[in-house]
Amino acid sequence: MSAKSEIRIGLVGYGFIGKVHTLAYQLLPIMYDPFPAKIRLVGVSAASQASTQKGIEQGGYEFGTTDWRELVARDDIDVIDCCTPNYLHKDVLIEAMRAGKHVYCDKPLAMNLAEAREVVSVAQQTGIQHQMTFDYRFSPAMMRARQLVEDGFLGRVYSLRAAYLHAGYIDPDRPISWRLDVAKGGGGALFDLGSHVLDLIRFLLGEYDSVYALTETFIKERPLPGREGGKKSVEVDDLALMTVRMANGGVGTVEASRLATGTNDELRLEIHGSKGALRFNLMDPNWLYVYDVREPGDPIGGGRGFKAIETVQRYPPPAALPGPKFSIGWMRYHIACQYDFITSLVEGRPTSPDFVDGMKVQEVMEAAYISAQEKRWVSLPLD
Amino acid sequence: MSAKSEIRIGLVGYGFIGKVHTLAYQLLPIMYDPFPAKIRLVGVSAASQASTQKGIEQGGYEFGTTDWRELVARDDIDVIDCCTPNYLHKDVLIEAMRAGKHVYCDKPLAMNLAEAREVVSVAQQTGIQHQMTFDYRFSPAMMRARQLVEDGFLGRVYSLRAAYLHAGYIDPDRPISWRLDVAKGGGGALFDLGSHVLDLIRFLLGEYDSVYALTETFIKERPLPGREGGKKSVEVDDLALMTVRMANGGVGTVEASRLATGTNDELRLEIHGSKGALRFNLMDPNWLYVYDVREPGDPIGGGRGFKAIETVQRYPPPAALPGPKFSIGWMRYHIACQYDFITSLVEGRPTSPDFVDGMKVQEVMEAAYISAQEKRWVSLPLD
Amino acid sequence: MSAKSEIRIGLVGYGFIGKVHTLAYQLLPIMYDPFPAKIRLVGVSAASQASTQKGIEQGGYEFGTTDWRELVARDDIDVIDCCTPNYLHKDVLIEAMRAGKHVYCDKPLAMNLAEAREVVSVAQQTGIQHQMTFDYRFSPAMMRARQLVEDGFLGRVYSLRAAYLHAGYIDPDRPISWRLDVAKGGGGALFDLGSHVLDLIRFLLGEYDSVYALTETFIKERPLPGREGGKKSVEVDDLALMTVRMANGGVGTVEASRLATGTNDELRLEIHGSKGALRFNLMDPNWLYVYDVREPGDPIGGGRGFKAIETVQRYPPPAALPGPKFSIGWMRYHIACQYDFITSLVEGRPTSPDFVDGMKVQEVMEAAYISAQEKRWVSLPLD
Amino acid sequence: MSAKSEIRIGLVGYGFIGKVHTLAYQLLPIMYDPFPAKIRLVGVSAASQASTQKGIEQGGYEFGTTDWRELVARDDIDVIDCCTPNYLHKDVLIEAMRAGKHVYCDKPLAMNLAEAREVVSVAQQTGIQHQMTFDYRFSPAMMRARQLVEDGFLGRVYSLRAAYLHAGYIDPDRPISWRLDVAKGGGGALFDLGSHVLDLIRFLLGEYDSVYALTETFIKERPLPGREGGKKSVEVDDLALMTVRMANGGVGTVEASRLATGTNDELRLEIHGSKGALRFNLMDPNWLYVYDVREPGDPIGGGRGFKAIETVQRYPPPAALPGPKFSIGWMRYHIACQYDFITSLVEGRPTSPDFVDGMKVQEVMEAAYISAQEKRWVSLPLD
Repeated sequence: MSAKSEIRIGLVGYGFIGKVHTLAYQLLPIMYDPFPAKIRLVGVSAASQASTQKGIEQGGYEFGTTDWRELVARDDIDVIDCCTPNYLHKDVLIEAMRAGKHVYCDKPLAMNLAEAREVVSVAQQTGIQHQMTFDYRFSPAMMRARQLVEDGFLGRVYSLRAAYLHAGYIDPDRPISWRLDVAKGGGGALFDLGSHVLDLIRFLLGEYDSVYALTETFIKERPLPGREGGKKSVEVDDLALMTVRMANGGVGTVEASRLATGTNDELRLEIHGSKGALRFNLMDPNWLYVYDVREPGDPIGGGRGFKAIETVQRYPPPAALPGPKFSIGWMRYHIACQYDFITSLVEGRPTSPDFVDGMKVQEVMEAAYISAQEKRWVSLPLD
Repeated sequence: MSAKSEIRIGLVGYGFIGKVHTLAYQLLPIMYDPFPAKIRLVGVSAASQASTQKGIEQGGYEFGTTDWRELVARDDIDVIDCCTPNYLHKDVLIEAMRAGKHVYCDKPLAMNLAEAREVVSVAQQTGIQHQMTFDYRFSPAMMRARQLVEDGFLGRVYSLRAAYLHAGYIDPDRPISWRLDVAKGGGGALFDLGSHVLDLIRFLLGEYDSVYALTETFIKERPLPGREGGKKSVEVDDLALMTVRMANGGVGTVEASRLATGTNDELRLEIHGSKGALRFNLMDPNWLYVYDVREPGDPIGGGRGFKAIETVQRYPPPAALPGPKFSIGWMRYHIACQYDFITSLVEGRPTSPDFVDGMKVQEVMEAAYISAQEKRWVSLPLD
Repeated sequence: MSAKSEIRIGLVGYGFIGKVHTLAYQLLPIMYDPFPAKIRLVGVSAASQASTQKGIEQGGYEFGTTDWRELVARDDIDVIDCCTPNYLHKDVLIEAMRAGKHVYCDKPLAMNLAEAREVVSVAQQTGIQHQMTFDYRFSPAMMRARQLVEDGFLGRVYSLRAAYLHAGYIDPDRPISWRLDVAKGGGGALFDLGSHVLDLIRFLLGEYDSVYALTETFIKERPLPGREGGKKSVEVDDLALMTVRMANGGVGTVEASRLATGTNDELRLEIHGSKGALRFNLMDPNWLYVYDVREPGDPIGGGRGFKAIETVQRYPPPAALPGPKFSIGWMRYHIACQYDFITSLVEGRPTSPDFVDGMKVQEVMEAAYISAQEKRWVSLPLD
Repeated sequence: MSAKSEIRIGLVGYGFIGKVHTLAYQLLPIMYDPFPAKIRLVGVSAASQASTQKGIEQGGYEFGTTDWRELVARDDIDVIDCCTPNYLHKDVLIEAMRAGKHVYCDKPLAMNLAEAREVVSVAQQTGIQHQMTFDYRFSPAMMRARQLVEDGFLGRVYSLRAAYLHAGYIDPDRPISWRLDVAKGGGGALFDLGSHVLDLIRFLLGEYDSVYALTETFIKERPLPGREGGKKSVEVDDLALMTVRMANGGVGTVEASRLATGTNDELRLEIHGSKGALRFNLMDPNWLYVYDVREPGDPIGGGRGFKAIETVQRYPPPAALPGPKFSIGWMRYHIACQYDFITSLVEGRPTSPDFVDGMKVQEVMEAAYISAQEKRWVSLPLD
């Protein structure tokens, strides 16, 4: 045990996603065996005293503060994990990196492309390690899909169809929050949900050539939180529809919606190529569906069809607790993403996805907003 | 055209299933191309004048009668198609066969094993051709399954799980009909639904070694039909549960139920073997699900899983209208079963499934009723 | 019987779809009971003598001709059923209507909007009855969906997601046919598949406000049919991606693809509204999936979710053979569409969908091609 | 914080299931908010020094021992959590209870009914609190199902169909382990998998009236573990098929199989009643499927069908991390089961399921083995 690296964490933002990251840190040593590091949860910062106290009691952090700069300033912290609302990302990340901390950042990277570029520039100057929480890349099915694509399974890519669908905002009385406030979130469904699916497409198929987008805000005002009443106009998109052209020649549609009545957490991805096809749905996460054109289609000799590959807990090896056959749930992706980050730190190998990946997604989202505004195709990369 | 054989049909019983058979005869020449025969719908018999008239108008029969023996007696009829309630099967079939007619019989073959044996005995003496309407054998998925089993796909068979589930009798006010009258139907859910699934198992896996059964009549009396009112006790099973041991060593459960709330026409079949597994559901008829243990399971190289083979309209070749990719419905099985019968007649090749197959299923059902009565395993064949 | 109207059919074009229509005419009298008409298949025309002969032998037409004008000229024909390649529709329909024939036309109505308008103009002058084969409107699930939408089930429509996916052209060696020849087909996947799905959206949600489209021809040349060899360039779209805005304010994506590897005949439709959602997939045709926001979501009292309404054979009443519980296949839609047409003729009530519906779909497709060409949103109606 | 009860855990057996329990203890304080206790992981015992050391490092236990009696003897432990192979359960539980410890025991309770009765007898004498790890009772879908059944949703129960299917032992070269050794495990698939599904049935439908069973060992010998080679005969069942009659009059089949090729962790349960039906599959854990006969079936007014209730993370309230919409995985059930145990301890309310529930399942399994041996129905309760 003494030989193990100690990785000392400072977490900024103890809301929903901060708790999820904390829970994942707690699980790593028992879920991955052997696990190469000793995680120490040193400090947590949050906007209120009550939240920091909760971080200590629930999360097991050694101390709490309402000033995130205190975490950045400490010598006994190696990693700053940024779980704040989007508008704070840039400052937290840049100051942490300048202080020599490795950084782990929940998506999206920043409020816009200019900020994202600034963050990446600092990351590249400081030489620290940086990773994005594009946690769905770590879904066993998506890891398997990536292997297949790299092996040429798809052939020439013709088309894709992707969507990330929630119904969380169908109640018009759901109050305004930072995710609905353009000044704090930077964007709407496109930022919150679209960033994940745009990253997955890039993970599997490479760079975007150009995008065309329509965005829509159906519920144009919502109540202010709290008891006083009053309404506030909503300035971010409830829904974004994109047509994309990839650098590899494939075309497709990408949708992000917070008003997709009847869905829970439904990220769908389908890709059709000349040699094969892939399907995935995050609400049916134990299988990756693949179709292989190379299989014999002749009725006598064979028969083609979509195969439900049992990804379950199987990717990547080595298998983690709870074992290869058990169904997986949403937290798995966060856990696996953080596992990869921590082991990258210990082994000194490049993190992935990193802030450049975060910036690329930011660029596609920015292109989408420009397209929706100007009603024209927008080519990538942006100047 | 002149070179084509003419096959002249006499249909006994113009109820639901008689109409379905008639419809299939009408479709054969356009659905199968080339189709080797010219079908002539010569005569129809039914219990009432009104029904025979309907057979002429709707079905296109040249004449009608309320006396089925009239059909049997005519020289211009080649085939007697028996669609009567079960209690009439034996007489219709035996007299038809003795008159030299080929016979096509809706399942089950007879009221009990003794009758079935008598029918088979006459069939074998007369040398005519005889076929059972075990039409689900002609599902594209089941035809593909049979090919796979013959190719050794399953390896050693461990277990099976089969059920034929309807909800047609959940309303306790549904009146008595011949299917609920032991004197006319001979049995209940086991006869009506179980005969199909027991035949499919035999089609795929061969003979039964022994059976254990429980039968249950949950709704013990039902209204008499018509306006007078009154109730009659129900003497046939609403549900039969069987445990079976196959001659090949596999074991499994088989269920037939008319009270399976929530189901429509749900025949399910799953088989687990040492090398592969099969799944099928008649309400999802376009695919046969197969699992191949021989495929590489290693996460890097491959990945196992159930594959949804696109059977659709593809089995058997040659493809029939409407073409290989279109979804299939329930009538397809009847059409294909009759196609096979008619082409067997034209080509003079053995029919399949024939009355021996019908008798074998009758024997399993009889064994099940003995088992349920005597609460013991019953070995096959019966003496 | 004598009281029944006789409807005398002349069919133009005895290819795949002509056979399907013929088969449906044969089935109507037995599948619908009572059926109000007596169908007489008077004449068939086809390009070749061999095909007309097949129409007589298989289809039961009384006579055949290679000149469709001969059918139009006869007094003993009431209905011209147009099953030719698209480039012939206009002439066949206009001449038939001018001769006082009722007309039934396979989709799309014409080669372009100008032709479609001309056809509609003649239809309105002559006062005959005219119907389009938008047969998926007659899917039990879609009929049920229409009822629900009319009852206000969806509330305010937010978004839709529709696609009609085939994989029929993934083999680059599949030869050119009229469907790939712009001079004969007028369009590609958008015409062939898109017309169906664009009509269904309109059937459920009303008129389009504007469209944005991208079309793509991935396989740019294909072999000529026959033995001589040689290649020909493909000028029609393999795939069309559309973003649509409906007059009701909803937005969505619509896709038509002939290169959707792994699909067979997969028409999908999803609609999200403020009060409910609908899902349908033509390869799972026995159910319409509905989600009702009005249901109690509280864990104690209820629980929301998609319900798989058993449409099966149940819509519309009266139930047809084979009865309410049996699975349906692709031919059902054609049969039901023609049933509606024939009963409209007999009862003298307006046909639906009619050529105005056909023209409206033509207009959306034309707008899509303009949009793809000019890379801009195109508003409807077109001038 | 100071007001919270401290619950001090001693874990016996740090194999797979011991690790899962440990992981769950770690998660409770962050997943449930508020969480009423402070969990202290005091001691772990395991067969080897290496395992206890792992328990300390990975699991965070304060100390380790290879003698479980040391845990039982300590004053600073409140709960003994028993995760040993089955043959040790009785001694661990009885000694722990006699020492005044509360006990939490992985299923099955004991090696046979006699042992189970002895354990229950001690539990009742000592007055401590005791709970079984029938963790699937805590699946959100099963909790919702229980509420529905209690509300009379099913009406009269007609039939059930249940199975717990794994494929873990299809490789005949998988070595012998304690689970295949009758002296250490007490039973085979019936014990390991059947105990779960038999408990779930009882949880939803009450007591068993009688059972009939067939058990089978297909792979009759397996390699010894380690390098020396050699084979050992397998004396426990690979598969058990049961026909059950419930005290409420319903009948059904129950299967447990370790050789169900193609399955991973597939617990299935279907119940058909006069008023409703339920379906559940553990590999599709986010939904409970319900069918309500009371809904209007008339095509105009409504439409029945199975509804996929979104159970996801929603049952029971209060919602736990990660929030109501996210997909759940296998570990959730263990976590929720232990949450219920710990809160019962804190609140001093009865635990459930308790050892009486464990004994009842043991009794059904014993009846099944008697039935399989003597080939007769066995009534419950056993003498």
